[in-house]
Amino acid sequence: MGRITTRHKAVRFDLAGLSRPRIETVVVEEPLEVRIGSEQLTVTMRTPGNDMELVHGFLLSEGIIRHRDDVLVARYCSDTETLNVVEVTLRDVGHALPVSAQRSLVMHGGCGLCGKTTIDAVLAASPPAPDGRTAGVDIGWTPQVLAECASTLREGQAVFAKTGGVHAAGLFDAQARMLVAREDIGRHNAVDKAVGWSVMSGANGVDRAAQALVVTSRASFEIVQKAAMAGVGIVACVSAPSSLAVEAAQDLGLTLVAFLREDRMTAFAHPERLRPRDARRADDGIASN
Amino acid sequence: MGRITTRHKAVRFDLAGLSRPRIETVVVEEPLEVRIGSEQLTVTMRTPGNDMELVHGFLLSEGIIRHRDDVLVARYCSDTETLNVVEVTLRDVGHALPVSAQRSLVMHGGCGLCGKTTIDAVLAASPPAPDGRTAGVDIGWTPQVLAECASTLREGQAVFAKTGGVHAAGLFDAQARMLVAREDIGRHNAVDKAVGWSVMSGANGVDRAAQALVVTSRASFEIVQKAAMAGVGIVACVSAPSSLAVEAAQDLGLTLVAFLREDRMTAFAHPERLRPRDARRADDGIASN
Repeated sequence: MGRITTRHKAVRFDLAGLSRPRIETVVVEEPLEVRIGSEQLTVTMRTPGNDMELVHGFLLSEGIIRHRDDVLVARYCSDTETLNVVEVTLRDVGHALPVSAQRSLVMHGGCGLCGKTTIDAVLAASPPAPDGRTAGVDIGWTPQVLAECASTLREGQAVFAKTGGVHAAGLFDAQARMLVAREDIGRHNAVDKAVGWSVMSGANGVDRAAQALVVTSRASFEIVQKAAMAGVGIVACVSAPSSLAVEAAQDLGLTLVAFLREDRMTAFAHPERLRPRDARRADDGIASN
Repeated sequence: MGRITTRHKAVRFDLAGLSRPRIETVVVEEPLEVRIGSEQLTVTMRTPGNDMELVHGFLLSEGIIRHRDDVLVARYCSDTETLNVVEVTLRDVGHALPVSAQRSLVMHGGCGLCGKTTIDAVLAASPPAPDGRTAGVDIGWTPQVLAECASTLREGQAVFAKTGGVHAAGLFDAQARMLVAREDIGRHNAVDKAVGWSVMSGANGVDRAAQALVVTSRASFEIVQKAAMAGVGIVACVSAPSSLAVEAAQDLGLTLVAFLREDRMTAFAHPERLRPRDARRADDGIASN
């Protein structure tokens, strides 16, 4: 566990005026550098573990790879004793855009940079779905199933329970079965690791279109970008969404659920994938609470 | 308010099987590109507002400027109708490292990239304090004051109250007076805006050494880096710290407080700046809770 959590001396103060020394368990944060050939692609601050999944998920969400076969080799740099540099050799560098032009999908707005240009960049790079706006609609997702997924994800958070310092991301099917769950200090890394596991296992867009990505954080644009690039049908977050996350999910044909709680949730884009188990509906106006 | 929050149609589901349309208020997320001359320095996803503060705070925390006079001009790009590109002209580009070499302080570890190298990079770039390890120790900070700061910060969170989707960062003095508070979808942006306000107001390292930076998020390395580059004596976060945040605060001579709650808090580095108001101490061992 030394690479995932560590122990530090600390002092706890209470407002009655008491101070006590304590040993606290803290989640590990270390930089991970990803290189394509000899070129630095990114440095991310992550919790060590499942690094190759993180790299595969990151490459997929940046549009650099589509499938595990696009990666010939991914290994830790042998020039260093730390396990914090991963070198990737791509199968066919001509196949994708030059890496330097892809450093980040949101970097390419030109002077007119705005939310719309960032959404367009993801739209251009994301995998073509048979029918992006309706795929997976009839798979049978219900609010009950999503609530069960969130509960399963939280129950499995071993590192969170110890440290209070990590986010989790998981992929689930419509029977609420957890396919994978990963924890990391960065919510984007947790998502990259879960999606990277899926890439490395050989799953493709058709598999993932029937899945939901459930994340214990807020729903930012970045999370929706990663979900869209992975090709999942639903992204569900425990906390609040941003405007750009909502607009991106609408344009990308993705169901975005936020405020995912034990007894309720709110769909901000494409609610048609979610069928209440009970057919009663209250469509007669805006509710007051 | 259209630039800070926006309203979206949504559907709320509860587990009894009811679905209701709702109008939800959502925090705005938009990209901001920062250029030095014609070169792109960074793109950050932020909540619009106080953009010039964000830019000044970011430049300070990356070691590109030390004082507001280092910025000759900072203005929105006139080639675009969106207010999402800021062009900066520095006073003396020879004065600092080339921007390309500074793109991010954590980018410069070489093949031996590890937590230590990232801390060393900040140590080399951060402002020299008269005595970094003891500055501000006798100013009179108490746990009671810090708890009051956190309470003031949360009470002032107008956008959070509406959307649940933003973090806040504030600078406080040892009398719990709030000097500035800023909200943003990104905790790093909220910190940059608060610190940038301080830079633009002409405050210097001596002023800030007597201040605490209070943030409503977890304490990651990035937050400690920004606090160290700003030269504050204390950084206090509402949630959990990471290992690298703790190690960086120890090495950089910064007091790091986490789990900052109404009735208690834990100091993970340099607790000597915090004096319990009541002199009772329980130093006789590790408490069980």
